[in-house]
Amino acid sequence: MLTPVLDRHSGKPLYVQLYEYIREEIRSGRLEGGSRLPSSRTFSAYLSVSRSTIEMAYAQLDDEGYIRSRERSGYEVLPTEIRTEPAVQIRSAAPETADSTVYKYDLRTSGVDASKFPFTIWARLMRRMLLDHGGELLQSGPSQGILPLREAICEYLYQYRRVQAVPDQIVVGAGTETLLALLVQLLGMQTEYAVECPGFPRVEQILRNFGIDALQIPVDGRGLVVSELKKSAAQVVHVTPAHQFPTGAILSAGRRQELLKWACAAPERYIIEDDYDSEFRFSGSPVPSLQGMGGEDKVIYFYTFAQSLAPSLRIAYMVLPLPLVDRFRDMFHGYACTVPSFEQFTLAEFLKQGYYERHLNRMRKVYRGRQQALAAALRVPGIRLGNLNGGLYLILHVDPQVLCGADLTEEELWQRCIRQGIRITGMARYGGRTGADGQEPCFLVGFGAYDAETLSCIGRELIRAFKEEK
Amino acid sequence: MLTPVLDRHSGKPLYVQLYEYIREEIRSGRLEGGSRLPSSRTFSAYLSVSRSTIEMAYAQLDDEGYIRSRERSGYEVLPTEIRTEPAVQIRSAAPETADSTVYKYDLRTSGVDASKFPFTIWARLMRRMLLDHGGELLQSGPSQGILPLREAICEYLYQYRRVQAVPDQIVVGAGTETLLALLVQLLGMQTEYAVECPGFPRVEQILRNFGIDALQIPVDGRGLVVSELKKSAAQVVHVTPAHQFPTGAILSAGRRQELLKWACAAPERYIIEDDYDSEFRFSGSPVPSLQGMGGEDKVIYFYTFAQSLAPSLRIAYMVLPLPLVDRFRDMFHGYACTVPSFEQFTLAEFLKQGYYERHLNRMRKVYRGRQQALAAALRVPGIRLGNLNGGLYLILHVDPQVLCGADLTEEELWQRCIRQGIRITGMARYGGRTGADGQEPCFLVGFGAYDAETLSCIGRELIRAFKEEK
Repeated sequence: MLTPVLDRHSGKPLYVQLYEYIREEIRSGRLEGGSRLPSSRTFSAYLSVSRSTIEMAYAQLDDEGYIRSRERSGYEVLPTEIRTEPAVQIRSAAPETADSTVYKYDLRTSGVDASKFPFTIWARLMRRMLLDHGGELLQSGPSQGILPLREAICEYLYQYRRVQAVPDQIVVGAGTETLLALLVQLLGMQTEYAVECPGFPRVEQILRNFGIDALQIPVDGRGLVVSELKKSAAQVVHVTPAHQFPTGAILSAGRRQELLKWACAAPERYIIEDDYDSEFRFSGSPVPSLQGMGGEDKVIYFYTFAQSLAPSLRIAYMVLPLPLVDRFRDMFHGYACTVPSFEQFTLAEFLKQGYYERHLNRMRKVYRGRQQALAAALRVPGIRLGNLNGGLYLILHVDPQVLCGADLTEEELWQRCIRQGIRITGMARYGGRTGADGQEPCFLVGFGAYDAETLSCIGRELIRAFKEEK
Repeated sequence: MLTPVLDRHSGKPLYVQLYEYIREEIRSGRLEGGSRLPSSRTFSAYLSVSRSTIEMAYAQLDDEGYIRSRERSGYEVLPTEIRTEPAVQIRSAAPETADSTVYKYDLRTSGVDASKFPFTIWARLMRRMLLDHGGELLQSGPSQGILPLREAICEYLYQYRRVQAVPDQIVVGAGTETLLALLVQLLGMQTEYAVECPGFPRVEQILRNFGIDALQIPVDGRGLVVSELKKSAAQVVHVTPAHQFPTGAILSAGRRQELLKWACAAPERYIIEDDYDSEFRFSGSPVPSLQGMGGEDKVIYFYTFAQSLAPSLRIAYMVLPLPLVDRFRDMFHGYACTVPSFEQFTLAEFLKQGYYERHLNRMRKVYRGRQQALAAALRVPGIRLGNLNGGLYLILHVDPQVLCGADLTEEELWQRCIRQGIRITGMARYGGRTGADGQEPCFLVGFGAYDAETLSCIGRELIRAFKEEK
């Protein structure tokens, strides 16, 4: 067994120490190509560290091409000849080390183009706020957010998403994680949750951190399979009706009615409607919100400005049904709003003066052009494209026989891309499938962060990577 | 029984509806002076609303002088002649309605003087950040906070509080509530907590929202009674060693050692050290932090800039012991930092260039002057002053026989102040005492928000209010 000496007091995270130790063992040749690494369960018991410490170290080695996952379980060391040296060394000071490997192209679905943010206007509004409001910006505002911002949000929501809400129902917060954490407390720690499968891993992570194991409800081409939800013990379900993540499915009209009926059938049932990228729809008519379809009392509507404005701003909001507003105020009275008043005043002005709408219209065109450039480059025999209606990623269904002339798994195709420095995501990552032999390989390719010209190149390089052509 | 018609769909919180209903009953004379209101338990069952809804409505009526609490239980309607009309009507749109009554003087302990905030410097740094960093401000930063800010915090902590920490241990977040919520998840939902009694009601509120009932550990003149903690089943204790809230006691050297020993005796024991107003100490030598006294592995150090800078900025941080850093990263990897990068860069610069230190030195002098002005006005027979060493409030021990020539309770004295529009806080509010007959009446009077001259008047008015002199 590998026996690293881990120092819990060094200030360097354990997984980094473990990663560096194994990397050195591989580089020096003490661990040879083809040898198997211990399972995370065995290794964590042996070292008395958590399984996720082991898994993060392995994931980092995997990302950097030192090891690869085996078909059914565990990892093996890659032979030297197909190994690539990592682009950067990870440092212990950066907490996000596991994700900070530098790829040639980072095509994660969360990629957005912050350079298109109307920074000049934002900075001008900020300066104006500093002049006009001064001391007011220093006062602690209401815990649900300042009234002008909540009014502007209601106005926008009604016009564009047909969400029915008064400012009393809006809760502004520093990101979806913060708001979802408040909601979990609001609904009580004993509540049973269900999530879409496949779905957002982040939602499951947040619930798991509260000790909640969410039930998995399958998704098909018409969105959440509501009949499966009905069979479960769930009281609250997290859904993405306008644009299911990751499949891109739109929740059908019949299922919407069925879902609302399910929620109305018991007093403590609620639907969390995550409308995360409803603003980037490229074709077809807009998909209305569930909240506006008669779900005012049963739907908790979530929205974040992270994708549409900039990830660093940390402004999100939720719309609580009126019956929950009282309970919210009872429980959280005196809590301060997690977004600084300064950002709130600026955003309120940005919305009221119509800058947000103009920015969205512009970005919709920009992103549509990018999607088309990438799609054009990927239209080859052996690749079928999905999720063309909206959102900032394409889905690639790959037929490896046709594309590569070999029967490759999702995992093997993914490894080929990673080795070429192209970071895409296998569908297996979102749950519900293993990506193993026999299942059609399927990938999510985010295009938000690159311009159209670069995306044409990326499409071609991606095909070469799949085919292992130089 | 009173039978209000409450409308859950009106958009107006239930407690506001209830408050308005009872107020109308009293004003119209249908509820006469001296009649008793139903207990919150009975009334909540009768109306099918939560007890806190009833309690908030009663508290509002109490604050506004319509009703008063009876010695042992419940409330009675005040006779018209000693009733005062409220200064403002509460509105349903403002979530903080229960606290938004306008007082002539609001002497809560949280009052600070935001007008002294070095706004010009802050605004200049912000403009500089906009110019220098631009797009970088839009990128999502590390989840623990940007490195320059964490470095500046470590530097400051070591110099002024002898806290030993590397940037890896710092977690920046949007206020204490947000950070404490993360910590509760980090330590696991099954953990037993203890809090000081009397202590911060907010800490108990946050824990209760997670379904956690904290154990109450008594406090005496030397701070937390550690021997009582040892007898309890608590694993984690929240303490304010430098300046106990609300008693002002400093945790004695012997108790500090005892407390650290308690924490070291079991692996999952931790101390949450809340250093909330250590910066405003007016006499004696600085009190060192527990963290720096050999508690690096057992103490989670909390600090907020709400009091020392401005309540609206929402920047706080915690220092995690190294063994918890790994677990934190495992659980919260990918969570975004709740403070916008923009504010983080500005604060980092503010700390690094020494503005923070200068601001604190200035405010220490300002607040000391205010404390002295208030204390001078209150030095009369029948009032003994406490908490003179530091913090932004005085403690008034009142001998009602000597001061007023009558045997009044804390509650009765408090009502006299409220009726004169002077908002102070009875010690009973913080738990551990009832404030009832036989106990020495004791009040907390915050002076942070008013200048020295006003405070001299306030002191005199306060004495007149206690004596019921016009």
